Amino acid sequence: MTDTDKDKKDRKDTFVTEITPRSEDFSRWYVDVVRRAELADYSPVKGCMVIRPYGYAIWENIQRLLDADFKATGHVNAYFPLFIPEGLLLREKEHVEGFAPEVAWVTHGGDEKLEERLAVRPTSEVIIGTMYAKWVRSWRDLPLLINQWANVVRWEKVTRPFLRTTEFLWQEGHTAHETAEEAEEETLRMLEVYRTFAERDLAMPVVAGAKSDSEKFAGAARTYSIEALMGDGRALQAGTSHNLGQNFSKAFGIQFQGRDKTLQYAWTTSWGVSTRLIGGVIMTHGDDSGLILPPHVAPYQVVIVPIPRGNWKETVLPVADRIRADLQRAGVRVKLDDSEENSPGWKYAEWEMRGVPLRLEIGPKDIEKSAVMSVRRDTRAKESIPFDQLTTKIPDLLETIQQALLDRARAFRDEHTTEVSDWEAFRSLMEGRPGFVVAPWCGDAECEAAIKADTQATLRNIPLGSPRVEGTCVRCGRPSSVKGWFAKAY
Amino acid sequence: MTDTDKDKKDRKDTFVTEITPRSEDFSRWYVDVVRRAELADYSPVKGCMVIRPYGYAIWENIQRLLDADFKATGHVNAYFPLFIPEGLLLREKEHVEGFAPEVAWVTHGGDEKLEERLAVRPTSEVIIGTMYAKWVRSWRDLPLLINQWANVVRWEKVTRPFLRTTEFLWQEGHTAHETAEEAEEETLRMLEVYRTFAERDLAMPVVAGAKSDSEKFAGAARTYSIEALMGDGRALQAGTSHNLGQNFSKAFGIQFQGRDKTLQYAWTTSWGVSTRLIGGVIMTHGDDSGLILPPHVAPYQVVIVPIPRGNWKETVLPVADRIRADLQRAGVRVKLDDSEENSPGWKYAEWEMRGVPLRLEIGPKDIEKSAVMSVRRDTRAKESIPFDQLTTKIPDLLETIQQALLDRARAFRDEHTTEVSDWEAFRSLMEGRPGFVVAPWCGDAECEAAIKADTQATLRNIPLGSPRVEGTCVRCGRPSSVKGWFAKAY
Repeated sequence: MTDTDKDKKDRKDTFVTEITPRSEDFSRWYVDVVRRAELADYSPVKGCMVIRPYGYAIWENIQRLLDADFKATGHVNAYFPLFIPEGLLLREKEHVEGFAPEVAWVTHGGDEKLEERLAVRPTSEVIIGTMYAKWVRSWRDLPLLINQWANVVRWEKVTRPFLRTTEFLWQEGHTAHETAEEAEEETLRMLEVYRTFAERDLAMPVVAGAKSDSEKFAGAARTYSIEALMGDGRALQAGTSHNLGQNFSKAFGIQFQGRDKTLQYAWTTSWGVSTRLIGGVIMTHGDDSGLILPPHVAPYQVVIVPIPRGNWKETVLPVADRIRADLQRAGVRVKLDDSEENSPGWKYAEWEMRGVPLRLEIGPKDIEKSAVMSVRRDTRAKESIPFDQLTTKIPDLLETIQQALLDRARAFRDEHTTEVSDWEAFRSLMEGRPGFVVAPWCGDAECEAAIKADTQATLRNIPLGSPRVEGTCVRCGRPSSVKGWFAKAY
Repeated sequence: MTDTDKDKKDRKDTFVTEITPRSEDFSRWYVDVVRRAELADYSPVKGCMVIRPYGYAIWENIQRLLDADFKATGHVNAYFPLFIPEGLLLREKEHVEGFAPEVAWVTHGGDEKLEERLAVRPTSEVIIGTMYAKWVRSWRDLPLLINQWANVVRWEKVTRPFLRTTEFLWQEGHTAHETAEEAEEETLRMLEVYRTFAERDLAMPVVAGAKSDSEKFAGAARTYSIEALMGDGRALQAGTSHNLGQNFSKAFGIQFQGRDKTLQYAWTTSWGVSTRLIGGVIMTHGDDSGLILPPHVAPYQVVIVPIPRGNWKETVLPVADRIRADLQRAGVRVKLDDSEENSPGWKYAEWEMRGVPLRLEIGPKDIEKSAVMSVRRDTRAKESIPFDQLTTKIPDLLETIQQALLDRARAFRDEHTTEVSDWEAFRSLMEGRPGFVVAPWCGDAECEAAIKADTQATLRNIPLGSPRVEGTCVRCGRPSSVKGWFAKAY
């Protein structure tokens, strides 16, 4: 067997091989589906992945939708350097302690050793803070509302495609304000933008709330997060929004002359989501057959599979192509799979695995009836749609699917959220994968650490708007006034 | 004087200070206008700039337009790692020789010294080639047509905002093909995409042609470029498209089983444009008053300046805002400058300096006449436009301006292109800034080097479709069959 023959055989086998069923091994299923659906691939660089076109198209949709949300809330984009001189990084003490262990260092440019090492940005508060100190002089320059779409690098020991990689893509918003109140408003405004986006476009229900002190961003005054629940009962931190107080403005000298003529430090925020969201989408919606992608972010919302019977190239194909063109004009992202190598059955399985929300099958009989058969990916429900209703019915059907995915995920989340008040119940639940466990907590960091040590569960957040309820801490029995949402997490 | 008072004074002075007139010192004018118009700023990282929101908005328009062109020609986007292991970079000999002197090296991750140094990508042929070797097995997998929008780093000694910086943003297309002919077709197709884009959207006329062997990309079989002429008579290489032959497929093992079942090496290409294009736009169109931005890429195509007379906030402002909303709905990027700190005269000068293609002035008298006064940035021509014609006339006027800028730049380029055949004429012309000098050339690299040593002029390219003309080389007198376009260049 030549190398090529062998490659070809391997490859054919790969195509035939099913992915590990999700119900059997969630973790293997995840890795299988990422590779098999060509979302991402391993690279020769340790801990770094390649985002393949099908995965990147999801990211492009996320970018387009979120970018519009950022602009609608008054933000503009800019671009700041990848490198941060070591001396600058050291200025905010908590920040550098949090990030230094994960920084990649550039020490040489060409053949020359650099006088000062450069950090490859793990996040950009430092470099952006330095520029803001130059740009902000008067209260009239505030608020400063800038976002950046960029790559960042954090040296990770254990990596997993999309969820945790050494390099990843993200957006980071950085804002500066005149008052503490405005900074807090902005922090919560962007948390709400994330919550809305996650639910509206990713069909991923999230809990928006405040992180505990021990889980907050290095250098922040307060950190808020949105937390989603994956299909295996583990939580995923899907986005964070930080109120940085005056910590960074003091470290980097972001000062302005106030309305009262006094010199004041600005109040800053930062907030970000990353390609991790793609991992969240996969693990929220997928099933044993592979991906299920929400229509708002699916690279293809519809795939058309022509049935090759008789002289189909003269009869079926032109009609299929006209439907493709009509749908495209109606704003639908559509793929016509007219390849001849594979059977319709193979194509059905392939595009199901790739999570396309809606399939249209069209053969000679459908043409006689002037209708196509549609098959939903989420429910596999079939419906015949007359030609002349395609461009109105299909956009509606896609919205129906979008909503159904959110409803299903929310029902799953609710079924996997348990409220408990005594420690034995908490601990025994956490021996499995219960999802969220809601329990009264005293607010003490040591108690939080003890819960983690005993159960591996972490405090995800304390939801916004939680009523104050007097009670006793689930673990230590001291007085508590809040309920925390705990889970094992990615 | 307190620090803040001083800052405030400095700042006010900066606002009053005019930019250096272009006619007086082109180089200072360029730097002044980049900073004064807030396109970019220097950063604390040597050789790296910050692209500020007004400059980044130009890049976003460039991205949007070019990305649509790439997709219309069948390309998809993906993302490959920032880092390239040193061993991989060394595999293509010419490539590494060309790039090694400018590579930034990562040597440490956190506290650990890496076993193998990682190059911060100066370009991605190596990492993408490695992945293509994994993905391509059969002729059916070809062509592979992928583009990436990314940051790259090249350690530069002398930098200049947008034109040459250590880090810059760009797109890099990387394709693999079955045959040499298809690779050459792709190389020329993308060169034509660049030429069309430069002329249609940047209003920047370019010469599309082949680079000489000594100017080609490190590792390429053939390099093509588009070359523009800046307002000071220097040429700017504005984009390149490389036919890489089988050099990279052999170095990285991109092999496929052909239609005839034999194992073959793929033929690859790469092509890119960068944020340098923004520098090209500035230097092609600007004048003594500052920027002139082509409407297709201008962050704001129209600025509305209300005239604050009488109770203007009740009378003029609501009308101005309605016009803003109407134009926005008509797809025009529009800014209403309703700030109260500055006079209309100040605003006129400010937005002229920032290059907004069209200004609308609206005061009580205009409202009486149900019309606004429009003022073109390029010609300063004024025209009164009735309210009810705004949403039709303004898009037309913007297209007229776009075309006028191209015509003007083309006329300038033509006036600054001289054909010569004898060496004394060539040399004496090159003592000034003649623009392009077209002259017969023998094709010899040493002769080309001698021309550069004598005159500082380089061979920009040999235009596509140049007729073969038998003659004698302008410098060495040996037989020549082509005419080269020479210029002093950025």
